[in-house]
Amino acid sequence: MKQFFSVADVDDLRGIVEEALRLKKDPFAFEDLGKRKTLGLVFLNPSLRTRLSTQKAAIQLGMDVMVMNMDKDGWALETRDGVAMDGKTVEHIREAAAVMGQYCDVLGIRSFPKLQDREEDYSEGLFKKFISFCGVPVVSLESATRHPLQSLTDLITIREHWQQDRKPKVVMAWGPHVKALPQAVPNSFSEWMCKAQMEGIVDFTIAYPQGYALSEAFTPGATVTNTLEDALQGADFVYVKNWSSYEDYGKIHPVSEKWMLDNGKLALTNQAKVMHCLPVRRDVELASEVLDGPNSLVIQEASNRVWAAQAVLKRMLEQLNKR
Amino acid sequence: MKQFFSVADVDDLRGIVEEALRLKKDPFAFEDLGKRKTLGLVFLNPSLRTRLSTQKAAIQLGMDVMVMNMDKDGWALETRDGVAMDGKTVEHIREAAAVMGQYCDVLGIRSFPKLQDREEDYSEGLFKKFISFCGVPVVSLESATRHPLQSLTDLITIREHWQQDRKPKVVMAWGPHVKALPQAVPNSFSEWMCKAQMEGIVDFTIAYPQGYALSEAFTPGATVTNTLEDALQGADFVYVKNWSSYEDYGKIHPVSEKWMLDNGKLALTNQAKVMHCLPVRRDVELASEVLDGPNSLVIQEASNRVWAAQAVLKRMLEQLNKR
Amino acid sequence: MKQFFSVADVDDLRGIVEEALRLKKDPFAFEDLGKRKTLGLVFLNPSLRTRLSTQKAAIQLGMDVMVMNMDKDGWALETRDGVAMDGKTVEHIREAAAVMGQYCDVLGIRSFPKLQDREEDYSEGLFKKFISFCGVPVVSLESATRHPLQSLTDLITIREHWQQDRKPKVVMAWGPHVKALPQAVPNSFSEWMCKAQMEGIVDFTIAYPQGYALSEAFTPGATVTNTLEDALQGADFVYVKNWSSYEDYGKIHPVSEKWMLDNGKLALTNQAKVMHCLPVRRDVELASEVLDGPNSLVIQEASNRVWAAQAVLKRMLEQLNKR
Repeated sequence: MKQFFSVADVDDLRGIVEEALRLKKDPFAFEDLGKRKTLGLVFLNPSLRTRLSTQKAAIQLGMDVMVMNMDKDGWALETRDGVAMDGKTVEHIREAAAVMGQYCDVLGIRSFPKLQDREEDYSEGLFKKFISFCGVPVVSLESATRHPLQSLTDLITIREHWQQDRKPKVVMAWGPHVKALPQAVPNSFSEWMCKAQMEGIVDFTIAYPQGYALSEAFTPGATVTNTLEDALQGADFVYVKNWSSYEDYGKIHPVSEKWMLDNGKLALTNQAKVMHCLPVRRDVELASEVLDGPNSLVIQEASNRVWAAQAVLKRMLEQLNKR
Repeated sequence: MKQFFSVADVDDLRGIVEEALRLKKDPFAFEDLGKRKTLGLVFLNPSLRTRLSTQKAAIQLGMDVMVMNMDKDGWALETRDGVAMDGKTVEHIREAAAVMGQYCDVLGIRSFPKLQDREEDYSEGLFKKFISFCGVPVVSLESATRHPLQSLTDLITIREHWQQDRKPKVVMAWGPHVKALPQAVPNSFSEWMCKAQMEGIVDFTIAYPQGYALSEAFTPGATVTNTLEDALQGADFVYVKNWSSYEDYGKIHPVSEKWMLDNGKLALTNQAKVMHCLPVRRDVELASEVLDGPNSLVIQEASNRVWAAQAVLKRMLEQLNKR
Repeated sequence: MKQFFSVADVDDLRGIVEEALRLKKDPFAFEDLGKRKTLGLVFLNPSLRTRLSTQKAAIQLGMDVMVMNMDKDGWALETRDGVAMDGKTVEHIREAAAVMGQYCDVLGIRSFPKLQDREEDYSEGLFKKFISFCGVPVVSLESATRHPLQSLTDLITIREHWQQDRKPKVVMAWGPHVKALPQAVPNSFSEWMCKAQMEGIVDFTIAYPQGYALSEAFTPGATVTNTLEDALQGADFVYVKNWSSYEDYGKIHPVSEKWMLDNGKLALTNQAKVMHCLPVRRDVELASEVLDGPNSLVIQEASNRVWAAQAVLKRMLEQLNKR
């Protein structure tokens, strides 16, 4: 594996999930694989779970980890070509990426969208340039439109908590928020679930209020509804997440119906397990009674971030060692 | 040891001091004890000594260390229950603590008081919730009302620099400052010295100006005076520290007498050794002539922070390995 | 080696360059040398290359690394003696340095000049006090007037890319910028090249516009010109760098001639290799066509930062182990 940016970078969805679960049982089974190899984690935006879980995964593979927080003022990267850098940007991504690739065997990078220019965000320019100029394998720590380590984690978590013969019904349900959030997590979850649906692993439904449709590129084959109650019928997993509008890009539309998942709404499901990528706004996005109740998987889900990262890094290291 | 939050968490004061001094003589004697174990250090406030010394202690025990600085804007934790999180806090301590507990075998956390609401600060709500939700052993890196790694260090330093048969007279002397500081360090030092006094290790006196009495919960059995000169008579150790008022909570009262320890005042003592937890405001809190003079122990004291942290982490690791 | 602050700290210029190139061929040849030794990296200003390359070098020598970012508000260091610290500084460098020296076997520190008071900057007070009070070997990660790890890197890079019998002509050429930059990099490069010229390794020329002369202390024996085209004739290496005025200290003088190196100007040289310490302002300081062209060495140069740091740390560790 030379990059981990979207579900398209994984050719065996079931295989990588099983690999992650084997690592969970025996975290140090490959602790020599990453010896003398350095992972660089570059954060243009804040991170808690992604940073700690990826660092932990790398350590368990024997890697050294260097973390760069570039989210503070004073290190603005230029991504445009053909402009004289006479403004606020201090370094071009061409040099920054190439240099970091000299110091690290594998790189991870996080960069959020600005939510102002949809075309710019969805072009994934910064991320693609970073991959192209750094010259080493790159793992996305969340980009403008996707969060693949989270989505792989989510698939692992569903697999781990589903023992029945039939396919589970997985519902991604929009939840309210006070801020305009990116579509990266829901895009990515949808992209992974749609592929899992194609492979006969899950049935996938998305529920959101009018005006919150995601880009169709991320939802092929998904059942879509604007009525939360309809979606929840028979659900085995409910994945709660807020996102801002894709159509009216980056905006928050007023929603009159009640979309926050609480115990009342949860009763409509098939005793569904409840997931959320965290951080979560309690009693805004998701009711405390659900988060603190027996159906919540949010902590187990966060815990599984380690195994998703470790499976991805393992594959990258194996490819590096082949050379 | 499952938590290290106050002197009550140590059942053998003499034993842990001797253990720390043995580690000082042979820092790598237990370098396999922490192998494959991760220490997470969470800073909601800045740190120099605590961070470096605890990191060093963990490394010498073979642990991996991950540091999280959460003191910057953008990661405000909610600690209250039963409120809708529609304001500035982005994550509840319930989830943040539980998640970090998934990634780490031992956690350390630093959180200063706000010095606005005494009841809130002295309830130690954030710290207690962190312990309760993270599910792993927790070491305080300074909380609203205590700084136990500093106090254990101080006891180690006194023990190391006292060879006589009789008990040393230890004086904690308030010193001036330009800012309102927490009571955490003096509370904690007093709590540890009072216990050491009960066990026949020291005689303990506290000197402060009118209006600066500490909470009585932290000073059982201590001799208290409002006259610095009286306290200094026959002192073997003088521990200088500023704190803001506990009674008129978090406020600075004007003090007319001169409370800064200088060579003149030091002459009243029994050639006392002078201690301070650092950072210190030179010639405000403590005279340069004392800091640079032969009686100062402040650097040796800072150095001993490593052995205090290492003794505590060693006990936590031993308990983890028992399971 | 007990300090690495200027070219005067290296007694065998050719020897340390060859040592660095041997390390480049076999990075882990001394991976036990730094075992149980800790490197502390203290940044009073931001860093990308210096931080990552020095961290990597230390790891390859088996050291543990602790990084302290002290560039944020809230940890202002006092460097003056004899002042009451009743203002904004929270700790004196005497204590801060001494304490960090207790926790680390080797220390690195970065501190930029303020560019306001030339005498103060050029006294290197902070750096010298840090060395004097910390008590352990110190490597400069860039100080007010020098950047020796960069200059050693540059000499390594020239050596690596020059196979001919004759001495190469090395030109340091001032380039435009939008901000007032320190003289540290050009001072340091000049100091190293002047010594290399004395030892018969290179011929060295400096070109800058009127008003941008460097301090003569850093340019002994260098050929100096105010005409870029003259300097470029027959050049084998062109080292591009902006700096603010030394004479009119820290100021930017308007420059009417075109000083940005582009392919047209590069054609005047002997197919010169082009170097820059990075970060570089594209199409302001240096033309994109040069940076992206076949003559640019900027990425290889950045990559060599690791070997410069590793050669220096190796020497410090060898001296420590002798004791």
